Amino acid sequence: MSWFYLIMTNESIDIAREMTALGKAARAAAAELAMCSTEQRNKALRSAAKALRSKARKILDANQTDMDAAEAGGLSAAMLDRLMLDEERIEAMAAGIESISELPDPVGKVLAEWQRPNGLLIQRVAVPLGVIGIIYESRPNVTADAAALCLKSGNAVILRGGSESFNSSHAIYDCMREGLESAGINVNGIQMVPTRDRAAVGFLLSSMAEWVDVVVPRGGKNLIKRVQDEARVPVIGHLEGICHVYLHASADAATARDVVLNAKMRRTGICGAVETVLVDSDVAQQLLPDVCKALSEAGCEIRGDEKVMGVIPNAIAATEEDWTTEYLDSIVSIRVVDDINAAMEHIATYGSGHTESIIASDSMAAETFLRSVDSAIVLHNASTQFADGGEFGMGAEIGIATGRVHARGPVGAEQLTSYKYVVRGTGQVRP
Amino acid sequence: MSWFYLIMTNESIDIAREMTALGKAARAAAAELAMCSTEQRNKALRSAAKALRSKARKILDANQTDMDAAEAGGLSAAMLDRLMLDEERIEAMAAGIESISELPDPVGKVLAEWQRPNGLLIQRVAVPLGVIGIIYESRPNVTADAAALCLKSGNAVILRGGSESFNSSHAIYDCMREGLESAGINVNGIQMVPTRDRAAVGFLLSSMAEWVDVVVPRGGKNLIKRVQDEARVPVIGHLEGICHVYLHASADAATARDVVLNAKMRRTGICGAVETVLVDSDVAQQLLPDVCKALSEAGCEIRGDEKVMGVIPNAIAATEEDWTTEYLDSIVSIRVVDDINAAMEHIATYGSGHTESIIASDSMAAETFLRSVDSAIVLHNASTQFADGGEFGMGAEIGIATGRVHARGPVGAEQLTSYKYVVRGTGQVRP
Repeated sequence: MSWFYLIMTNESIDIAREMTALGKAARAAAAELAMCSTEQRNKALRSAAKALRSKARKILDANQTDMDAAEAGGLSAAMLDRLMLDEERIEAMAAGIESISELPDPVGKVLAEWQRPNGLLIQRVAVPLGVIGIIYESRPNVTADAAALCLKSGNAVILRGGSESFNSSHAIYDCMREGLESAGINVNGIQMVPTRDRAAVGFLLSSMAEWVDVVVPRGGKNLIKRVQDEARVPVIGHLEGICHVYLHASADAATARDVVLNAKMRRTGICGAVETVLVDSDVAQQLLPDVCKALSEAGCEIRGDEKVMGVIPNAIAATEEDWTTEYLDSIVSIRVVDDINAAMEHIATYGSGHTESIIASDSMAAETFLRSVDSAIVLHNASTQFADGGEFGMGAEIGIATGRVHARGPVGAEQLTSYKYVVRGTGQVRP
Repeated sequence: MSWFYLIMTNESIDIAREMTALGKAARAAAAELAMCSTEQRNKALRSAAKALRSKARKILDANQTDMDAAEAGGLSAAMLDRLMLDEERIEAMAAGIESISELPDPVGKVLAEWQRPNGLLIQRVAVPLGVIGIIYESRPNVTADAAALCLKSGNAVILRGGSESFNSSHAIYDCMREGLESAGINVNGIQMVPTRDRAAVGFLLSSMAEWVDVVVPRGGKNLIKRVQDEARVPVIGHLEGICHVYLHASADAATARDVVLNAKMRRTGICGAVETVLVDSDVAQQLLPDVCKALSEAGCEIRGDEKVMGVIPNAIAATEEDWTTEYLDSIVSIRVVDDINAAMEHIATYGSGHTESIIASDSMAAETFLRSVDSAIVLHNASTQFADGGEFGMGAEIGIATGRVHARGPVGAEQLTSYKYVVRGTGQVRP
């Protein structure tokens, strides 16, 4: 069976045709969206929120269909919880969209302005990116969040959710389109891939550079790997979050305990949850008993290196693999380090460049850590669970970017813009 | 011969090994460079400029070797001119590096700062991108410009110049490394691909994502196409410059003539040179004779649509191909359009999103054009040849990005940075 035959099945042809049509329609809508007024886009957002509330019944029915299939398919309880919608979650989606509508408009903002000696007035002005592809997994609410952020920032969006949330996502998508329609905006500004076929993702990543300006993947390791392997379009990258809290020799004991407990156990399934705690050897004996007691009482399993086990005898022996594992669960690994340099070296070696925190009273040590650690977010005396667009005051986010190109850290409406230079002259020619 | 055999020749293995070593060394140097002080990086730049001047003889000898080979190989006169170095061009390189050393440091700049109601102080701080790959063609001076901009912005760089300028580029590269050395910076912060083998470019684009954060291609259509096809690393894209000047019905006649003449003929070989002039039908009869006379007298060939030929009888008939051609030569295409909407539609259809200018006295028309035309640079009453980092006051540039992700327009030191979030707390945990 030749390669040619492999890609030329009827199904593939249909996918290429459908996805191309989607892309062309999105490109055309993006040009219109870029010209929409702030109020028109905000009106569409408010109307979408209204539609989500008024069509809650329809969304819940669609979600029941998905849930039934997922249960029959034997999905894990954690996965089922992510997939599940109820009145409260729908209300949270609607309220989230309304809060996005109240954010300042990132489009048209003058980012910088200066005049040249020859009189030319130069402005750097924020403009939409164009067409954004969002590839996500089981949570259907991403449909609303992502579409709302793209609309806010004047972008057209092509959504591709997980196949298990297909019906739920489509019901939410219908509400978002209703919002566009009621504001007189081309409904093709929000589109959704109409098939569960995984080949559609491949086509989106590899063959749509003409119609898609950037892809934002939101999901687990397998999705991220696929995107890295196949993408021929720019990607705003989201890797896993192997986050660290480092307890410096000068750490306040209560702060150390409270922050580690919160960073690990507030919610274990989010990317900003801490996975590894590093502690200076000088204070391990003093700090660890209290920290580990709080964690254990909250139901957290503790894996430690030899030195940790010397202090916490009932800890489980950590292996090399633990330092590179994003548990997303009630498990923490703990390692004793010689000093701040050893801590920073551990983070450079094993971290994923997401979020790290230092607990220290010594502000010189804190500044060294904040300056030297090369992660999207570095904190001093605060929980890693603050790694979140909402907590940063950005209103909402599509995710936390760990790449270095275009956007890093929480990706909100502002990060979904590009810019152009507007130059006003009076007939200047270049000498 | 199987695919496996094809890629497993000894030469390929050597390239993989060499390029991997280059990448690892660059990654290690990047971590050190990010921690260097402003003064240390500026000192390295000044020392590199000094080395260029003191080793001018050696550079000229290397250039002679390249020129001899190029002449023997039958390179065109234009290519030979790009390749050629003399005392003056070496002095220009040295002076350019010195002016980059005097620019403000983009690294460490606080781009935004705000406090949250819970007391967390959040800063967005500029940091280097990391390791930048620069792929360029015949001009050996790009070696100095690109290395200097990367060094200024705290990045390690892997340079890969055109094979015809191999010896010249290496001689310049030696001076750049000398600059690093004299400032006590790891010399691996500036590296150059040690082989002319084109497979090295393929390896850089496809297999070095671990060590290269972004690739900036600078070159013609073939290079850009190759990068688009093969890149598995983020790219700051540079397409061709199919730039337009649009003469609105309200255009001042003298401004129209002077700007078109400058935009086309000041230098025809740069990406900001105009290729197509659009003119409102109401004023074609009035403006074109003067514009075309100035162009013809300067030695420019005029290709026009039927309406242009009605006014300028000795114009050559333009074909559809002319609207999509970057001449980079003394040729201009001219088209008569019904109105501003038709002009903007032409630009959207045939342009490359680089630089467009409107000549108009009517400021409403100008604002419509500036807002609606979706190009990296839009100008009012000024020449498209101002599309240049130096002319923008950015000191120097690696090129003009036409992509929308990360950087758009002139790419200077500031555009070669990313950022991270620094968050200072007092023990905050997330509710």
